[in-house]
Amino acid sequence: MPGNRYRAAAEFRAELRRFLRRSEDCSRRFGITPRQHLLLLQIAGADGGSTTVSDLVGSLSLTQSAVTELVQRAQLAGLVERTPSEEDGRVVYLSLTPLGEEKLAAVHAALGTERTHLRRAIDALGSD
Amino acid sequence: MPGNRYRAAAEFRAELRRFLRRSEDCSRRFGITPRQHLLLLQIAGADGGSTTVSDLVGSLSLTQSAVTELVQRAQLAGLVERTPSEEDGRVVYLSLTPLGEEKLAAVHAALGTERTHLRRAIDALGSD
Repeated sequence: MPGNRYRAAAEFRAELRRFLRRSEDCSRRFGITPRQHLLLLQIAGADGGSTTVSDLVGSLSLTQSAVTELVQRAQLAGLVERTPSEEDGRVVYLSLTPLGEEKLAAVHAALGTERTHLRRAIDALGSD
Repeated sequence: MPGNRYRAAAEFRAELRRFLRRSEDCSRRFGITPRQHLLLLQIAGADGGSTTVSDLVGSLSLTQSAVTELVQRAQLAGLVERTPSEEDGRVVYLSLTPLGEEKLAAVHAALGTERTHLRRAIDALGSD
């Protein structure tokens, strides 16, 4: 059967859904929520492994209040710690605790194959 | 600042979140839900522009009952129509109504820039 104008976008979205589904299952398997996984990743992936709530609003595409709540819960779960800036007391830097680092490393390693698979699937798709 | 082992994955996820967020906003702007958009896309992107609930379970990464409910609502909204197979009465083919085609075409066109942006962002990231 010949392709149609929506085929490439449909295949791309199907791959994306599978990737996100597996990623979510993987987070839960290691005892954190899918959002906590993304939070830990955005903190660890920032310069120097620390960032602020304001920066997370952009990288997580969430509202300020959603990020604040997410950070509070992650702190209660012992995954994230807060360090007030020495220059400006209103600024708080977030970084991972050893437990947070351990959880992120476990989920990240388990998702290695999925990331490779998604990249290949995306590369294999023609542009539309 | 030098990169770190999580940087590429963090940037990839941030781009993905932005893309999905814009895609969801875009669906709603044209009066359909984000899931209805994906449903219409998977039907239109299938061979011959028609598919079955069973195939959608795979391409949408949803359960059979979630797909069944999604299809019923889309049918009620006049977006999708059902045609029983002539060979096997238990099989029902789903296709888009003219309204469904119109909505999908509008969302798809509006998302063209976002797809290009996401592809470029993914290409620009080193593999990890």
